[in-house]
Amino acid sequence: MISFASDYVAGAHPKVLNKLIETNMEILSGYGSDKYCLSAAEKIKKACACPDVDVRFLVGGTQTNQIIIDTMLDSHEGVIAGTTGHISAHEAGAVEYTGHKVITIPCENGKIKAADVKSTLKNFYEDDSYEHMVFPGMVYISFPTEYGTIYKKSELEQIYYVCKEYEIPLFIDGARLGYGLASDECDITLEDLVTLCDVFYIGGTKVGALCGEAVVFTHNNAPKHFLTKIKQHGALLAKGRLLGVQFDALFTDELYFKISRHAIILAGKMKEIFVEKGYSFFIESPTNQQFIILDNKKLEEISSKVNISIWEKYDNTHTVVRFATSWSTTEEDLEYLKGIL
Amino acid sequence: MISFASDYVAGAHPKVLNKLIETNMEILSGYGSDKYCLSAAEKIKKACACPDVDVRFLVGGTQTNQIIIDTMLDSHEGVIAGTTGHISAHEAGAVEYTGHKVITIPCENGKIKAADVKSTLKNFYEDDSYEHMVFPGMVYISFPTEYGTIYKKSELEQIYYVCKEYEIPLFIDGARLGYGLASDECDITLEDLVTLCDVFYIGGTKVGALCGEAVVFTHNNAPKHFLTKIKQHGALLAKGRLLGVQFDALFTDELYFKISRHAIILAGKMKEIFVEKGYSFFIESPTNQQFIILDNKKLEEISSKVNISIWEKYDNTHTVVRFATSWSTTEEDLEYLKGIL
Amino acid sequence: MISFASDYVAGAHPKVLNKLIETNMEILSGYGSDKYCLSAAEKIKKACACPDVDVRFLVGGTQTNQIIIDTMLDSHEGVIAGTTGHISAHEAGAVEYTGHKVITIPCENGKIKAADVKSTLKNFYEDDSYEHMVFPGMVYISFPTEYGTIYKKSELEQIYYVCKEYEIPLFIDGARLGYGLASDECDITLEDLVTLCDVFYIGGTKVGALCGEAVVFTHNNAPKHFLTKIKQHGALLAKGRLLGVQFDALFTDELYFKISRHAIILAGKMKEIFVEKGYSFFIESPTNQQFIILDNKKLEEISSKVNISIWEKYDNTHTVVRFATSWSTTEEDLEYLKGIL
Amino acid sequence: MISFASDYVAGAHPKVLNKLIETNMEILSGYGSDKYCLSAAEKIKKACACPDVDVRFLVGGTQTNQIIIDTMLDSHEGVIAGTTGHISAHEAGAVEYTGHKVITIPCENGKIKAADVKSTLKNFYEDDSYEHMVFPGMVYISFPTEYGTIYKKSELEQIYYVCKEYEIPLFIDGARLGYGLASDECDITLEDLVTLCDVFYIGGTKVGALCGEAVVFTHNNAPKHFLTKIKQHGALLAKGRLLGVQFDALFTDELYFKISRHAIILAGKMKEIFVEKGYSFFIESPTNQQFIILDNKKLEEISSKVNISIWEKYDNTHTVVRFATSWSTTEEDLEYLKGIL
Repeated sequence: MISFASDYVAGAHPKVLNKLIETNMEILSGYGSDKYCLSAAEKIKKACACPDVDVRFLVGGTQTNQIIIDTMLDSHEGVIAGTTGHISAHEAGAVEYTGHKVITIPCENGKIKAADVKSTLKNFYEDDSYEHMVFPGMVYISFPTEYGTIYKKSELEQIYYVCKEYEIPLFIDGARLGYGLASDECDITLEDLVTLCDVFYIGGTKVGALCGEAVVFTHNNAPKHFLTKIKQHGALLAKGRLLGVQFDALFTDELYFKISRHAIILAGKMKEIFVEKGYSFFIESPTNQQFIILDNKKLEEISSKVNISIWEKYDNTHTVVRFATSWSTTEEDLEYLKGIL
Repeated sequence: MISFASDYVAGAHPKVLNKLIETNMEILSGYGSDKYCLSAAEKIKKACACPDVDVRFLVGGTQTNQIIIDTMLDSHEGVIAGTTGHISAHEAGAVEYTGHKVITIPCENGKIKAADVKSTLKNFYEDDSYEHMVFPGMVYISFPTEYGTIYKKSELEQIYYVCKEYEIPLFIDGARLGYGLASDECDITLEDLVTLCDVFYIGGTKVGALCGEAVVFTHNNAPKHFLTKIKQHGALLAKGRLLGVQFDALFTDELYFKISRHAIILAGKMKEIFVEKGYSFFIESPTNQQFIILDNKKLEEISSKVNISIWEKYDNTHTVVRFATSWSTTEEDLEYLKGIL
Repeated sequence: MISFASDYVAGAHPKVLNKLIETNMEILSGYGSDKYCLSAAEKIKKACACPDVDVRFLVGGTQTNQIIIDTMLDSHEGVIAGTTGHISAHEAGAVEYTGHKVITIPCENGKIKAADVKSTLKNFYEDDSYEHMVFPGMVYISFPTEYGTIYKKSELEQIYYVCKEYEIPLFIDGARLGYGLASDECDITLEDLVTLCDVFYIGGTKVGALCGEAVVFTHNNAPKHFLTKIKQHGALLAKGRLLGVQFDALFTDELYFKISRHAIILAGKMKEIFVEKGYSFFIESPTNQQFIILDNKKLEEISSKVNISIWEKYDNTHTVVRFATSWSTTEEDLEYLKGIL
Repeated sequence: MISFASDYVAGAHPKVLNKLIETNMEILSGYGSDKYCLSAAEKIKKACACPDVDVRFLVGGTQTNQIIIDTMLDSHEGVIAGTTGHISAHEAGAVEYTGHKVITIPCENGKIKAADVKSTLKNFYEDDSYEHMVFPGMVYISFPTEYGTIYKKSELEQIYYVCKEYEIPLFIDGARLGYGLASDECDITLEDLVTLCDVFYIGGTKVGALCGEAVVFTHNNAPKHFLTKIKQHGALLAKGRLLGVQFDALFTDELYFKISRHAIILAGKMKEIFVEKGYSFFIESPTNQQFIILDNKKLEEISSKVNISIWEKYDNTHTVVRFATSWSTTEEDLEYLKGIL
């Protein structure tokens, strides 16, 4: 069945798969020390246009969030995140499992505001009993957010300004980074991102890889003994090549950006279809995830014909449904969708 | 300087101290196996009028919250608490340190509502992706709350009803339990409490002891190997007698209830003074903690004469201040306060 | 360069890779709910000849050890393991990271003895202060061990007998299970294994997969809410298909056993070469890992021509070196090795 | 019944208790900010003859070990300790609970050797795969040890020399420090200790206090935000005065040293009695704990008349028994013991 349920319903992008096939019988060293991990890191470094970035590979998104947060925080610190942030809501407490509180602040359309970050920090240090509270030791945002929205450059600058003022790192969850950067509304590049935060990751799983996330520490600030800490978290692959080879492919000939752009163009067409057909949007999203309010009867009908993802209840007779495009979505898929709406 | 800053500014109630003095040279076995721990547990059992309660002693409040929550939850579970609950706000992330999320819900005057607990649980299980979220595995409330308010019996019954419906325990933080039970507005007894939750504790530190909290599992439901788990959390005293002797004294001749009542009576008189003098209350509290809105100039003046506790900013020219009575507050203290207001 | 350094130097077995290629564009649901995860589990169930087994997929070996041990132990419990066990020595403290002690007992050639397990348990419960110690809550062994040795059926029976006597689970780390079962000296089958422990895993990473370990709970004893706990540990793949597809291939036409047998036959031939050439064995290993004592000069010479793995210092002039075969080792590789020894 | 079972069978030393009585009704601020905590710290600083020491108070020994180790180690590090070290054997896994491995090395009479520490560190860094192992990040020793023995100054110097060479801290568990320093065989003073390690603690619970351990960071090296970390571990007392007042008393007029010396003198007399009566010593201990090998029949007889502590099985007909003196032991107690041996 054709699926708009998510951006991880197909396998790998053919070029990523081909690279796995081509390199399959090569003899390579383990644990991320192979030449593909090295060259992938080098290519990402180049794409970031920054010699000081430190690139590491991990397997999945929750794992990456968990490890970055746990290894960059001191034990008495927590991480500030929006209430709808992935780490706040949908990671089964993976951050708390490592001993750190997720300090939630309000979100609007998935985004947090620099002013709220600032007031959280300010109020904390002005509180007479702050030593009895969890120290806010990092800010976490997603780009794009869980609702498909993206931050403007000026918004990121404001948030990062506050972080620097309070000397805490800004971490950007880029599980869907490609779709954000490829959006028409995006006013930043990958190169910009390096200057706008302390650490971010380039999501592979949802942008054409079978698995894999490339973590970018923006100024040689990877935690000491990071490999050991990855192993300690159970996250080190013996065949680290699996990650290196895929990211090497994704960062050859700008594949990562091209396939992201493809999804965005199709998302734009999908939006037009929904508009044409008179559907209401739950949120205005400029990326590959669209959130549509469906009448429950229509929902039943549609979901018998394509895979979609139920997001949340809207009211007693309506439901918010996510329709996602990805590198694997085709014009034919959209035609079919149009036919059944 | 006379102090209304908190209910832990003096040492032990003289009768508690006397019992420590009387028993000081007795040879007693360690780790809570001594006769005073046993007799204190027996007396508390009797006061609870329930043969099935299981009484254990711990040293402090945060420690008790941390250990009860960690040992009663399964690893994938978190605890539901109000946003102003002590574990949510003022325990330096002690619960998260043990790997569990504090799932916050709204509070009004420090209290949560059964309906909010219910909807949290209902929404969780109705969410298609609930397996990717922290399971709500316990409900935590404070009695009295951090704002001095108390739950009505009917409110506790409603919350407990929801807990039972979803088969999760209700835990009542009784760091100031005595002051709650002694309040004029309280419609429950210690005996009632046993039937209204799965575990609670009888706070000693703030009600006449030097330290110590008596945990009451209401139906022989202490976690298996609880002593080992206490030790593992670094919380087992070699001289467990320190806790047993004090609680033995507190539960002899109803001392715990008498000194709690004393504080409540004086709190009532203190309230009258504030009313007389025209002060505004931030919250209507029926227990030993009163929250007064002070003009910042007045605050400065008062705090040069008595110890008080700054609670939070009210507005640019006013501050919320806590005035607490305790077993050690005297009529003279109140007279003095009256003179300087 | 030809490599005998380990059994994870090549990519995936061609049939495993083919299955990934064939299924790549199929639309599949996420998080292990896809049809390949289901069919792989079904095939493993069938290979185990037991309707009560519960099969789950994880990504890597350390991760699997960490999650199984953490989710099957109560918080006050630790796991008994040999001093050279992988969890004791080479997992960067991944088990301790989750809060559990690895209780080490002596090893001989990588193997522990039922008698030592028994005396550890017996001594523990006979110790007057056992409540102040870590409870031994599980036994961990590797099959084959880290030194390539395997347990006889009778040895496993004896260890499992002790476990049952003390009502604690036996967990078998099968990171290289295939190579153990395929050994000429092995007197058990996969079907037997199901009756000889409570949980084991079928290692994929080292036996032809790109990544992946199939956990087998032998009597429907998977921990409750295991999926959530996997997520909480950061180990849940969005594209769970990556694991399902590979294990589906490995358990089609007995591929897993055939490629394991291939490595064992070549390991036998490799052994013969070492014997012929007069080399000394550090240990008598019946599986795919051979441990040879090399003169340090010879070591230098050899390691300039093939990749090998330095195991440990033997004496001032000799070193123990691991030579491993795998599904990807060829007769030509052995010929080459023979030429340079 | 007279007891030689341990050094924590009585309450507080009368002078300690008196200070609690005298100060009981004073109004003091909470959480260790009171004047007694300050003056106790000042007195300890003076006794240490070092302006750079940083003194903090905790409640119990296991708690202190847990918090110091957890807060001074980085997450990928473990602590080196002897197999019979308290943290290795008798703290219910409190260190592992915080995520850190206890890396055990051999003990002789409770003591570890600098050479073994050195070889552990050397071997670790020489191992090609050390990044896959737990980093040794601290050395832990007890003074006196769990067997009552003490290190010579030269032995401590050698161990500390190795620690400095590898840039890891040396931590000395001084749960019974007084009895060690007061021993005739001890060739160091408290002042010396400051120069021989990075952190140690002065045990109160077993040397005359009701509870309490004074942690001494020897060169202003307390972990940042230590108070918050104490709170996070559930170990911060609201009435911190309980600790401050007791240590203030213990460090007034050298009480701590005098009562320690008393116990040592009586231990010497007790040893003479055992020698006279022809008993065998399990170990030669120069401090307040004596380990005697008793025939099991004699053991039964004696233990019906005085409290003693069974240590471990010696052989089928004999048992090792601990006889401890303390500040509370009297000459009469010894006379009585003599009569029944």
